[in-house]
Amino acid sequence: MRMYDCIMKKKKGEKLTSQEIREMVSGYVKGEIPDYQMSAMLMAICFQGMDQEEITELTMSMAQSGDMVDLSSIPGVKVDKHSTGGVGDKTTLILGPIVAACGVKVAKMSGRGLGHTGGTIDKLESIPGFRTSLDQKEFFSIIDRVGFSVAGQTGNLAPADKKLYALRDVTGTVDSIPLIAASIMSKKLASGSDCILLDVKVGSGAFMKTVDEAVELAKCMVSIGEKCGRKTIAMITDMDIPLGCAIGNSMEVAEAVETLLGRGPKDLYEVCIELAGNMLYLAGKGTIRECCSMAEEAVADGRALEKLKEMVEAQSGDVQVIQNPANFEKAPYSYEVTAKKDGYVTHMDTEKCGIASVALGAGRATKESSIDYAAGITLRKKTGDAVKQGDVLATLYASSKGLFQEAEALLTKAYEIEPERPKEEPLIYAKVTAESVEWRQS
Amino acid sequence: MRMYDCIMKKKKGEKLTSQEIREMVSGYVKGEIPDYQMSAMLMAICFQGMDQEEITELTMSMAQSGDMVDLSSIPGVKVDKHSTGGVGDKTTLILGPIVAACGVKVAKMSGRGLGHTGGTIDKLESIPGFRTSLDQKEFFSIIDRVGFSVAGQTGNLAPADKKLYALRDVTGTVDSIPLIAASIMSKKLASGSDCILLDVKVGSGAFMKTVDEAVELAKCMVSIGEKCGRKTIAMITDMDIPLGCAIGNSMEVAEAVETLLGRGPKDLYEVCIELAGNMLYLAGKGTIRECCSMAEEAVADGRALEKLKEMVEAQSGDVQVIQNPANFEKAPYSYEVTAKKDGYVTHMDTEKCGIASVALGAGRATKESSIDYAAGITLRKKTGDAVKQGDVLATLYASSKGLFQEAEALLTKAYEIEPERPKEEPLIYAKVTAESVEWRQS
Repeated sequence: MRMYDCIMKKKKGEKLTSQEIREMVSGYVKGEIPDYQMSAMLMAICFQGMDQEEITELTMSMAQSGDMVDLSSIPGVKVDKHSTGGVGDKTTLILGPIVAACGVKVAKMSGRGLGHTGGTIDKLESIPGFRTSLDQKEFFSIIDRVGFSVAGQTGNLAPADKKLYALRDVTGTVDSIPLIAASIMSKKLASGSDCILLDVKVGSGAFMKTVDEAVELAKCMVSIGEKCGRKTIAMITDMDIPLGCAIGNSMEVAEAVETLLGRGPKDLYEVCIELAGNMLYLAGKGTIRECCSMAEEAVADGRALEKLKEMVEAQSGDVQVIQNPANFEKAPYSYEVTAKKDGYVTHMDTEKCGIASVALGAGRATKESSIDYAAGITLRKKTGDAVKQGDVLATLYASSKGLFQEAEALLTKAYEIEPERPKEEPLIYAKVTAESVEWRQS
Repeated sequence: MRMYDCIMKKKKGEKLTSQEIREMVSGYVKGEIPDYQMSAMLMAICFQGMDQEEITELTMSMAQSGDMVDLSSIPGVKVDKHSTGGVGDKTTLILGPIVAACGVKVAKMSGRGLGHTGGTIDKLESIPGFRTSLDQKEFFSIIDRVGFSVAGQTGNLAPADKKLYALRDVTGTVDSIPLIAASIMSKKLASGSDCILLDVKVGSGAFMKTVDEAVELAKCMVSIGEKCGRKTIAMITDMDIPLGCAIGNSMEVAEAVETLLGRGPKDLYEVCIELAGNMLYLAGKGTIRECCSMAEEAVADGRALEKLKEMVEAQSGDVQVIQNPANFEKAPYSYEVTAKKDGYVTHMDTEKCGIASVALGAGRATKESSIDYAAGITLRKKTGDAVKQGDVLATLYASSKGLFQEAEALLTKAYEIEPERPKEEPLIYAKVTAESVEWRQS
């Protein structure tokens, strides 16, 4: 194949063959295909799309460009979970323990946060001593023994995705559903789990801004997973409002602990039970109703929290902060953002909330930035809440007072306050399986 | 401006500002903008297009990226001519002398041939001793004294075009009307003539395959020319059939001489008179009818051929081959391609004829290839001619018998012979000016 001919084919809207896609990906990873040809191809894909067969081939080629983790030596069904990224999304820290407590293994390789969304690895590293760099032997052993482990992605997991993502990032070719789906699923396939639960976020704090787009992405990813022999379900969940009340690393771990104690925010608890139920369902533990009950019981009787402690201990983290999150180091300064008028919170620009948390030190503006684990935001009001002028909307935490001004300005803009109570938005919009899209009542 | 933002704007179909276009072109020439970002932009332009204001700005930025030739020191009106490229297109060698003989100066900077179309520089270099590398002083002096000179493009003429063209060539982004128009017109603007005649070829041997596309490109280029203060006209001429009968460098010079002697092929003569007439009209020599008569007279009374001789002499060429083209060195071998059946030539794949001439050694397959000036094809039959089985369709000339097989196969495929006489195609489809598109009767 000649890359030039492949570009022309895609430009004209023609279908690339499996061989063309395989050679393109391997040629690019080897450096035989230059960036300037690949970026032209990526832009052509943004305009012309790819069909499901092309996307699946692209995903497999990207997955096979590096190590394919083989989890088969660990007994039992292994389930993976992926969120397309949101603000205050600490679900992995809750789901993993619940699912493991119910006897299904969760092998999670995770990335760091960049931009307005946080990463699970960063959240876990806010626990003193916690190690996320595990070699494969240790990772496997923790999954086998505890049932749940989170490790940082190894350098050789889907290197084609790494190289392609870096190019997409600077050439305006990120927002293409085939490319997003292939990027996510290549890493999931390479990570080796039998089942994959996808949490596709939609709304002001998510990459997908409309439910239709989110469903399209979900269908595409579920189809890839199923074609590659992995049982895959996607839930379309709301990210128009931050999930829970805590944004910031150790604050989110604390909120996860509260949720596992059964006293966390209602939205976060409900979403986690539904996601955990679906993970158990994927693993064949029963009907979806039975699986959700199982998840609720694991929280109610404390087994899930116990699993989180075991896992933190196995990865050398200080269990005292899990036993009592008050043991986390506190930010030296706090600041209250107040409402400027009476009314209802009718909308939140969740991306702005995420950016505000980055401004406070809780996230990375660039790959090289360091993180202040104690910094963050506690939301006191969210969409739907009634507020009076002067009410605290959110409390900010940071290591320096100078950081509050920008964050306050962002949060003030993020909250829309109007006289009328807004319509309630659903937490979960739809469930996408290989067979159907199951819409939820709002 | 950030190149990333410009790519995103164009991808969404938004308009780039003048400043964005200028900074993009200058940044690219300086190497500050990498190829991979520019190729993504070029692909986005292929899909989203550019409006006339953007195209004009792009063209001017490309023209101003290098030397802007200032012809004002040469008295009189200077006219330039550009053909979008065709097979057997030797019009410059005929037009230039005619127009100069009528008192209008023709300053032509020309490129070499690549692919299936020949270049004027290569044709002229088939004249023993002919020099096309002229410094500006000599080029100006020949234009002033003789009225017509053809020189090779200097390295610093629209370097942005050179760099962009090389990138387009390998990234599948050649076939975009805004990019083609900007590429051609940037060189014309930088070349400095007051008036520009564009010969936009259409048909099986041309880059533009349909008259509609050709008219769109013509309108775009005329608009750029006029907005930049150059009087510009475009003629849409046929390249579904090779122009004249000779394809190959010295053979085309010989055919040009024959045409200036009034005994060349009718199609070639008619197109040249019309193009020359329009060049004289652009220069303000009279009505279009008067200008065409003037051109005919210059051929009839031998003044045009005299001009060709003067120009060849001024550029150190051997005038004996102009006085008698039989003095050109002959190819040692010839081969006759014959008709396999009776009928009419109903269609010619002119691009295949061009490729056949390259196979014989008359053109370059790659930039590094050398040219056999004596090699080529004489077409004995063209579209519309009646043929009997065994009739000679074309005679091939080459330095080695081994080259005939591929060329014969190509030519045999290029000629379609069917029982019914085809409808005659017009030589000129339309004339495009700033004010209107004037369609010709077919």
